[in-house]
Amino acid sequence: MQAIGIDLGGTYIKAALVHKAFGLVKTNSVETGADLGKDHVLSQIEAAVKPLMRRRGRIAGVGIGAPGSIDLDRKMLIHPPNMPGWGVVDLRQALKKRLGRRINVFVENDANAAALGSGRYGAARNHDHYIMVTLGTGVGGAIVFNKRIFRGETGAAGEIGHISIDYSGPPDQAGVNGAIEAYLGQRFLTGHAREQLEQYPDSMLYVAPGLENLTPATITEAAMNKDPGAIAVLEWAGQKLGCVLGGIVNLLDIRTIVIGGGVSKAGDMLLKPARDVILSYIKPGMHEDVNVIQETLGNEAGMLGAACLVFDQLDDEKQK
Amino acid sequence: MQAIGIDLGGTYIKAALVHKAFGLVKTNSVETGADLGKDHVLSQIEAAVKPLMRRRGRIAGVGIGAPGSIDLDRKMLIHPPNMPGWGVVDLRQALKKRLGRRINVFVENDANAAALGSGRYGAARNHDHYIMVTLGTGVGGAIVFNKRIFRGETGAAGEIGHISIDYSGPPDQAGVNGAIEAYLGQRFLTGHAREQLEQYPDSMLYVAPGLENLTPATITEAAMNKDPGAIAVLEWAGQKLGCVLGGIVNLLDIRTIVIGGGVSKAGDMLLKPARDVILSYIKPGMHEDVNVIQETLGNEAGMLGAACLVFDQLDDEKQK
Repeated sequence: MQAIGIDLGGTYIKAALVHKAFGLVKTNSVETGADLGKDHVLSQIEAAVKPLMRRRGRIAGVGIGAPGSIDLDRKMLIHPPNMPGWGVVDLRQALKKRLGRRINVFVENDANAAALGSGRYGAARNHDHYIMVTLGTGVGGAIVFNKRIFRGETGAAGEIGHISIDYSGPPDQAGVNGAIEAYLGQRFLTGHAREQLEQYPDSMLYVAPGLENLTPATITEAAMNKDPGAIAVLEWAGQKLGCVLGGIVNLLDIRTIVIGGGVSKAGDMLLKPARDVILSYIKPGMHEDVNVIQETLGNEAGMLGAACLVFDQLDDEKQK
Repeated sequence: MQAIGIDLGGTYIKAALVHKAFGLVKTNSVETGADLGKDHVLSQIEAAVKPLMRRRGRIAGVGIGAPGSIDLDRKMLIHPPNMPGWGVVDLRQALKKRLGRRINVFVENDANAAALGSGRYGAARNHDHYIMVTLGTGVGGAIVFNKRIFRGETGAAGEIGHISIDYSGPPDQAGVNGAIEAYLGQRFLTGHAREQLEQYPDSMLYVAPGLENLTPATITEAAMNKDPGAIAVLEWAGQKLGCVLGGIVNLLDIRTIVIGGGVSKAGDMLLKPARDVILSYIKPGMHEDVNVIQETLGNEAGMLGAACLVFDQLDDEKQK
């Protein structure tokens, strides 16, 4: 069985033809051009997908992971961030109109889609229950229990980025004091790094790329090259991550945590400090099998997971 | 339909004959005598329950809410706190042995039981999805989704008390820095109150009951009498509560929160400050219908909820 999975990002739209058993068959990528408005973005989605549909073999449907909230019926995209002028859009209808009335279309939040991709093709493959955390521009998340997304009352569950780990801490973009995103969101992380590097005047980051051009990737690279300042920054960030993850384990008793998204490429430089502190934030008696693992799929998780929306739906219908 | 519900506490064992439609029929209470060991406590449970079983009418079963972790099969009680020498006990078997082999016995965590009681007879009566927080010696919690307890991987979900709201904050009894229990647990709350009252040398609490004898109840009473120091303490505590609850709403998208347990008797003196800050800790877009309400059942929630274990199980079997 084959389906098309789309990852609707603020900068790029990535689409893939996905084979249920074998994963990616062919991918395609176009620029989102979000500032050109909704109709332009929808045309770009069509442009990304159409070449994949011309290939041989029946396509069971199209799944799309999108930023922002999705309604419980998984049709409506509600105020996607960084996409000016969208408001509330029936993304399912909009895509059916452009791709074909008879095509099944499923819409999901991007972090939820990434979690499904991880569960079928990635680091969560052997787990029925896990938390997915996506570390990128923002911090996203998803709860998977019995291989299904836990969606909450309105479909918005999993907003890990806005959980506070310091009631009087610095605010994130939404104004939440001490939200984990205010430490680990890309822009926040580089800001904290600049501050902390004052303690490390010999850091190579002053030269390459220079403090004004810091990114999580350059910090990670410097840390891999044993730069003490860069190592300290990632250690500091990993400890914050461990704190929020510990709280989640206390609440949900879900003990496998998969870390994806661009910032997760720091790997053990970030995850070891998180692992080092996480148990100290969890009730004794709930420590067994707590496990923080790195997603290995990279940017493909979103596309793969979006295709899983189609596979899962058809599996469900078969069982009925 | 009638069942017996038991609330196994560290100090008292409370038992009730509960009518499914009408609630409490008759209650009974005995001292736990936890320090006299497991066999004594089991005998005390028997002593509390037996008089209730002698009444007319068939009893559908016995439910018990107990402190500590319960296994996923809801039989085993695992290392209950404040009950020396228990270890891991098959509480279902132990009770069947004493109450009658043919009696259905169901075991549940006490906070989970209180949540079920609230959902059928208390403040959560009209809600399918809610978070229950019990504020007492410790801070407990439960997640109810679609009227069912969310139990997590091993049955331990809902350990709200150990969620940190300050990664470098003061430790709770288990050593978790900044855990909400380290602010709102009974002993911690009175400790913080003593510190904060230094700013209020005119507080009536210096006289009655005196700083050494502070309890949440006396602080609440003083606050009701407009004592500025007492009001400030409960405001401080309520703001901490609002922070942890905001994080839970972000994660679960469950928007009704019911606050029970002894400390919740402070009512709006504690809950209004929580309501005042909670939205500032929640992602914009998830603010609608967020609601922090006080449990009205008091100590009866646990017994009622324990009886619900029986009613729910029989409902489930009927549906099969």
